Amino acid sequence: MNHILTYDSTLRDGEQSEGVTLSLEDKLRIVERLDAFGIDAIEGGFPASNPKDIAFFERVRTMPLKHARIAAFGSTCKKGVAAADDQGLKDLVASGAPIVTIVGKTWDAQVTRALQTTLDENVRMIAHSVAFLKAQGREVVFDAEHFFDGYKANPSYALACVRAASEAGADSIDLCETNGGALPHEVEDIVAAVARELPGQQLGIHCHNDSGCAVANTLAAVRAGATQVQGTVNGIGERVGNTDLLTVIANLELKMGCSTVGPDNLRDLTSVSQFVAEACNMSVPVHHPYTGASAFAHKGGLHASAIARFPEAYEHARPESVGNTQRMLVSELAGKASLVAKAKGLGIDLAEHPDKTQAILDDIKAREALGYSYETADGSLALLLQRHLGAYRPHFTLESFRVIVDDHEDTGALAKDAMSEATIKIHVGDQRFVATGEGAGPVGALDNALRMAIVAFYPQVADMELVDYKVRILDENVGTDAITRVIITTHDKHGSWGTVGVSENIIEASWNALVDSIEYGLMRIGD
Amino acid sequence: MNHILTYDSTLRDGEQSEGVTLSLEDKLRIVERLDAFGIDAIEGGFPASNPKDIAFFERVRTMPLKHARIAAFGSTCKKGVAAADDQGLKDLVASGAPIVTIVGKTWDAQVTRALQTTLDENVRMIAHSVAFLKAQGREVVFDAEHFFDGYKANPSYALACVRAASEAGADSIDLCETNGGALPHEVEDIVAAVARELPGQQLGIHCHNDSGCAVANTLAAVRAGATQVQGTVNGIGERVGNTDLLTVIANLELKMGCSTVGPDNLRDLTSVSQFVAEACNMSVPVHHPYTGASAFAHKGGLHASAIARFPEAYEHARPESVGNTQRMLVSELAGKASLVAKAKGLGIDLAEHPDKTQAILDDIKAREALGYSYETADGSLALLLQRHLGAYRPHFTLESFRVIVDDHEDTGALAKDAMSEATIKIHVGDQRFVATGEGAGPVGALDNALRMAIVAFYPQVADMELVDYKVRILDENVGTDAITRVIITTHDKHGSWGTVGVSENIIEASWNALVDSIEYGLMRIGD
Repeated sequence: MNHILTYDSTLRDGEQSEGVTLSLEDKLRIVERLDAFGIDAIEGGFPASNPKDIAFFERVRTMPLKHARIAAFGSTCKKGVAAADDQGLKDLVASGAPIVTIVGKTWDAQVTRALQTTLDENVRMIAHSVAFLKAQGREVVFDAEHFFDGYKANPSYALACVRAASEAGADSIDLCETNGGALPHEVEDIVAAVARELPGQQLGIHCHNDSGCAVANTLAAVRAGATQVQGTVNGIGERVGNTDLLTVIANLELKMGCSTVGPDNLRDLTSVSQFVAEACNMSVPVHHPYTGASAFAHKGGLHASAIARFPEAYEHARPESVGNTQRMLVSELAGKASLVAKAKGLGIDLAEHPDKTQAILDDIKAREALGYSYETADGSLALLLQRHLGAYRPHFTLESFRVIVDDHEDTGALAKDAMSEATIKIHVGDQRFVATGEGAGPVGALDNALRMAIVAFYPQVADMELVDYKVRILDENVGTDAITRVIITTHDKHGSWGTVGVSENIIEASWNALVDSIEYGLMRIGD
Repeated sequence: MNHILTYDSTLRDGEQSEGVTLSLEDKLRIVERLDAFGIDAIEGGFPASNPKDIAFFERVRTMPLKHARIAAFGSTCKKGVAAADDQGLKDLVASGAPIVTIVGKTWDAQVTRALQTTLDENVRMIAHSVAFLKAQGREVVFDAEHFFDGYKANPSYALACVRAASEAGADSIDLCETNGGALPHEVEDIVAAVARELPGQQLGIHCHNDSGCAVANTLAAVRAGATQVQGTVNGIGERVGNTDLLTVIANLELKMGCSTVGPDNLRDLTSVSQFVAEACNMSVPVHHPYTGASAFAHKGGLHASAIARFPEAYEHARPESVGNTQRMLVSELAGKASLVAKAKGLGIDLAEHPDKTQAILDDIKAREALGYSYETADGSLALLLQRHLGAYRPHFTLESFRVIVDDHEDTGALAKDAMSEATIKIHVGDQRFVATGEGAGPVGALDNALRMAIVAFYPQVADMELVDYKVRILDENVGTDAITRVIITTHDKHGSWGTVGVSENIIEASWNALVDSIEYGLMRIGD
């Protein structure tokens, strides 16, 4: 079996992604996680560039890694400077990282126009830099910047650059598709040409996704002889992003007969994806290959029975193999089999209540016709199931609410000064509470009032936080009297859940989703 | 130059995407936009499945399309049923669509296990269905479901199925990579095998993105001889999504020397991407290839001067070629030239006011940073331009409004009895009016109150009708205090227009959009 080395650049090239900033602690936790996952090399940053990266290399040296080796990233020596005198190279050595990765130019026009030196001097910089680092006992990866554009423009010069790195002893020559615009057949042809030129030399591949082909380009390079794949977790990176290393790993393991992290670790793929997303303060996109929440989701009904008969026909891979789960979306088309499967995922065994299943399905269909959607509202669905099973006990009941929104003067389209106030009257057991909340908007005011009213009874609500609020106007009726669907996502320290509310009145729809979010939050912690 | 036909399935397969629901009006507006963009075939839906799709085919028949042809989607006849007696096929014909696309099975195990019939009967169903539709004078596309898995399992049977469709007269045989798990080299080999088997037959390709290779798989099929590419705008679709048709078009035009919509229309790529995303109530992902806000964004510093010296080194394509921009601002109005063109479309000649254009652009950018979007809000844009040109005369001014929403009892999730009441105090010229309106929801109540207050002065408002009301929560992860963007579409006998309002308070955002909708409605009829 062909073993392919995995080289992660999340902490270096990934951090170039707009909106991503990783703290030192984040970086160290990611290293720990990627090491446990079985990644071979982890690029930590530029040791010469800033105090955070310098501190990273100091701290990471003391970490007991099981498998992964750390790489420090930098450039070849400067033009006209001897390698041994180059401050950047000295910093790379001082980082103590066992792998040093240096980027160098291989596109003739880049050398003359951007670097503004001669083609020969660039080749010297590559050769001397690699030789210097090898003499310091480091494993050296040469990142051949713009290699594919360079090869298309001047193949013999591009090859001369990587040949210089190879002859100077580079352990791996990683061809970089810097602009991200190449297509798989080009990558395959060019990598194959390099493999013919440098037999026995380890080659790697580093791609960007600007033409939407980063994963395919990486696989094409492997087919042509590359044995090291670079990428970032979830494909984060500048512009459109880097190759998603996780998708590449899954494809290599499950579809190309290659070994990388191995089938056991592969089952952590989804949790690694979620972990790194969390550290980057983002969510895994729901439609992300292999690891997204929808990656193995099926609209029920028509398909559900077919999937049960013949799963291979509707899944390109087993979700368990990458630690994801099959999800049945409850929709207008849902059948009994998918409802039972869905309920099971919520910890509710409908198989014990065969008499109730049809009534529940009918209720769901009636509600969907009114505008409800349970695809992303597991919390509301669980409450609905519990009501049907007689297991639902409301934690509070509403007597009334009133929301007032006031605005003064025609303040123009940029005004944001309308204030909202909500008063709710509520019963918990045999006690009655009246509370008033304020907010920038009416729903925030209602949320504040509700929490204020019940927090003495249910202190756990203080842990629950509304993290997402979506509004969809359904246009079965037109205009402002249309049905409004509100989806709220709430989380506490145990996880997150969605709830749904529907009404012609947006405030009431929001209220219904809010009530479900608190009720389900209390129910799931067993209160 | 190799011409490749584009076949869009946004309205059918794209609508299978979790969370996407398109109204009839949305679908028709998307058809209009894709037609203008130069798409060759637009799949509208299943005419047999639901009233919305039936209504779609009725309405679309009357639309004056410039270029695109509409496709109705369905299946081959049922097992044991003659094609001429099959209700599904009769519904497809009755739809009046010039293209009929029927899906049929080509994987032997699918036929025996899921369809539960014989391999011969399946071939008969394909052949008779295609022949029946051809006899009705339709252009027929045969969608060969699971073709790639089928070919891997039993190549001779898979080929027998498509040969039957070909011999029965199918105009195009579109090979479907239904599971989305194939890799480009497999797709290329298998499409080439079919092309050898059926010389002269038009072949198409339909992919899903489960292995992250949908775009590359589609391009690989074109290299092997497919001349029709299926996909959806922005790649929306079930699970991980379909092939992103826009990325494929850009790659074909800019990188593979093929013609599709042509270089002029290609400059609308980004706005088509944004338009359809908006209709789906979502945003174009910022890292989306070609059309995302970050697709041509560069982190400054290291790169900025290099980009200036040698832009090809940092851009795989010119952003202008796809209507995107090198900087972060993503808007149809990014540059002066496009603003002048846009204004001209609204009947406002900015060329007469060269001194004002920069100030207007700056104002638009500032508002976009606050959450405004003018892509679908021509009415608000026109008012903004008129304000800058000093040509704006408000028809009324607000003193204050108060909205009250009352609800009683905990009526459960199906309750719809909250009533809303809005009182507004308003000035028209030197007169002051106070009016109170009721509504099922707060915005309807405000709308009623506003009309009541001004109808005596402006009887034309009686002709104006709110036909669509969309709410987008921006920055969704800050919960109920997030910025809310409201887009309202209004029409009268002269046409329809969109307006936008933004606020942390959903009621105020709605009010701002409402005011603009009435103001612009009065302005455009010259009142």
